[in-house]
Amino acid sequence: VKLDNTPPRGMRDLLPAQVAVRDGALARIAEVYARFGYQRIETPALEDIRRLTSDQGGENEKLIFQVLKRGLGERIPADTPVRDLVDLGLRFDLTVPLARYYGNNQASLPSPFRSLQAGPVWRAERPQKGRFRQFMQCDIDIMGEASVFAEAELIEATTEALAAVGLSAVTVRLSDRRFLTALADSAGLAPDRHGSLFIALDKLDKIGWDGVAEELERNGVAAEALAVVRERIESLQNAPHDALVTVLANALPNIEPKALDDLATLTACLDALRAARGVEWRFDPTLVRGMGYYTGPIFELSHTELSYSIAGGGRYDKLIGRTLGRDVPATGFSIGIERIADLVQLSAERETVALLFEEDVALPAVVAKARELRETGRSVVVARRSGKMAPQLTRLEDAGIGSYILMRAGSEALEEKQLNAPRPETAARG
Amino acid sequence: VKLDNTPPRGMRDLLPAQVAVRDGALARIAEVYARFGYQRIETPALEDIRRLTSDQGGENEKLIFQVLKRGLGERIPADTPVRDLVDLGLRFDLTVPLARYYGNNQASLPSPFRSLQAGPVWRAERPQKGRFRQFMQCDIDIMGEASVFAEAELIEATTEALAAVGLSAVTVRLSDRRFLTALADSAGLAPDRHGSLFIALDKLDKIGWDGVAEELERNGVAAEALAVVRERIESLQNAPHDALVTVLANALPNIEPKALDDLATLTACLDALRAARGVEWRFDPTLVRGMGYYTGPIFELSHTELSYSIAGGGRYDKLIGRTLGRDVPATGFSIGIERIADLVQLSAERETVALLFEEDVALPAVVAKARELRETGRSVVVARRSGKMAPQLTRLEDAGIGSYILMRAGSEALEEKQLNAPRPETAARG
Repeated sequence: VKLDNTPPRGMRDLLPAQVAVRDGALARIAEVYARFGYQRIETPALEDIRRLTSDQGGENEKLIFQVLKRGLGERIPADTPVRDLVDLGLRFDLTVPLARYYGNNQASLPSPFRSLQAGPVWRAERPQKGRFRQFMQCDIDIMGEASVFAEAELIEATTEALAAVGLSAVTVRLSDRRFLTALADSAGLAPDRHGSLFIALDKLDKIGWDGVAEELERNGVAAEALAVVRERIESLQNAPHDALVTVLANALPNIEPKALDDLATLTACLDALRAARGVEWRFDPTLVRGMGYYTGPIFELSHTELSYSIAGGGRYDKLIGRTLGRDVPATGFSIGIERIADLVQLSAERETVALLFEEDVALPAVVAKARELRETGRSVVVARRSGKMAPQLTRLEDAGIGSYILMRAGSEALEEKQLNAPRPETAARG
Repeated sequence: VKLDNTPPRGMRDLLPAQVAVRDGALARIAEVYARFGYQRIETPALEDIRRLTSDQGGENEKLIFQVLKRGLGERIPADTPVRDLVDLGLRFDLTVPLARYYGNNQASLPSPFRSLQAGPVWRAERPQKGRFRQFMQCDIDIMGEASVFAEAELIEATTEALAAVGLSAVTVRLSDRRFLTALADSAGLAPDRHGSLFIALDKLDKIGWDGVAEELERNGVAAEALAVVRERIESLQNAPHDALVTVLANALPNIEPKALDDLATLTACLDALRAARGVEWRFDPTLVRGMGYYTGPIFELSHTELSYSIAGGGRYDKLIGRTLGRDVPATGFSIGIERIADLVQLSAERETVALLFEEDVALPAVVAKARELRETGRSVVVARRSGKMAPQLTRLEDAGIGSYILMRAGSEALEEKQLNAPRPETAARG
């Protein structure tokens, strides 16, 4: 079989410059999160397929890469259900594994526990611009804190982390699953229709109210119900910050009082964050978040230069309890690293010297010379001098290397030469 | 279905202290490799299953986690071969994906190209002490350098990287696939029996010569052939460093002359490395390395405190050519991160302050106080004051936190108190 060298469909190879930007951004983000006490943990990429398909992952459960059981033999007996062939799946997010992790390791963890995770997740989505089937998330979560102090801290820590990589023009969009439930109830929707409404609302910015109406009609939601929903959403979209809680209480008298209290406290924290750091926020009644596990406040971060959100999260107070046996309040916030990578600008370093050697130099002498140079603390890249030296020097310069030394057999004093004119960041070096 | 919270069989959750040690070690290793010009790249975790099963991975090809095709429907038709159900697999090493990567991206890469990879690989091995089904490798590779300069540099860079995390008591064990081929030929083994010999020899340190003999007998290798092999191996094990090439040439007159030249040059470099850095080396004629793709020198690093090797690698000049259409010389060296993590000692930091708040304090005031403390550059962990304060303080101290501040409603001047006696590394701080 002739194989081409491209990676699997929807997945990517990362070039050195791409990894450098991503890792540089991750390092700065992790440094800010560490100042808030978040501790990095890690779980395996694979989870029990039953955990991944327990109805907590919303639409993402349809996108799982499933792993075949080992030792199945060469042929599958007739009429075997596919679910009997698989036992594991690649995680589609970092939250479902974290809930298991907390249950497995709670005796060794402080309370509240602040976790930091950075790692790949996999979703078999139709590949499209800016979407990949393997992508990296950077999540922080607080487990064991029931108040919206958790939400306020997650939002502050994440906006500071993004500011540390140059992304300060962000807006927090805020809503609450309890608001959405009250909204659907108030429009007369039975609980088994709530999901259809939320999934359609989630697409509002892409398909508009007409598209939402069409989708809901197909799912048996009456046009009158949607009219009620739309009118309430629009009244909330126009509510000023300081009247938000009052408008909400009037529009939805059926909403849980605790949801209103939480919103009042959280928006007070967000007002203070705006005063201290210039971070904007708004209540967004069309915000849904795809996942099935959210139970309270939900939030996303938008950046002025991007049409999609760059981070999202929310409260999931019931997820850990599903397998632990008792509920543990939990809230999380996830940055989509691919989504910010294009905006991040980190400066390159040019302190590396290239040691080029002619064919006639003994290899142990080359190794020794490189060692001597590195002992001065510099980075040294060794390569053979190629036949055409000018293009080789251009490639070295393009790769960010500042100078070179040419080594010939018998040459004693080796001269270091600059590559091109000195740049601002290399003027003081070599 | 009731699920317990343990991770999948043979896989691990990492606690914060474990991740801190691993990431700290990886950062120092990467810093050394960067001084040698290695550039970090990344490939997806999944590869085309045909690439993973093209007979280049040796025994590891039997251990692949295979991924089910998407959209198969609910039931599988009768007598479907398992191989028709899968299209992807989780990588079992970082070398097979790198060969694909180089073919896919060569136009954007310098020559020679020095890559650094750090990431998980998966093997469905029988779980046993110290072996996991997901584990992390840190690999460096040089593509485009045909001489043993590449081997000499990989070995020097890796021993320096390990020294940077405190592992300097290492020994390089060296052999060559061309030596093994000449050995098997000289014992009269047909090429299709070479694999059986190498697989058995690879287990020599575990099963002894009797075990090797038993295994080879089962595979139809004559006892006389093994006697020849054993006698030559033992003569080489006893050869002094400076007579090694001569002893080898005499024992195996059929060996490729280029293999002897390479060994002479590489051991000269290793002698110089021993003089400069105290790194020991020896020729190990029983070293095989499991992978199918090696073509030249192979090597491992042993540490005095461990019975297994902590890094391994070798030359694979034919792997890239299999899908690129032309051969590119390549050599790599891989550190097993789990295998060194237990030996690495990194100092903890204790500059974090805990901000504990009473139930009666307004949450926005807590958030504001934490922000004020962080603005002085410190790390701040916020938690509610628990009913029993003494055990809470003990837990904070155990978590490496150096001091705390207790916040009550209406309290203006907040006093910071040390947790326990000052430690050497915190004596100078707040």
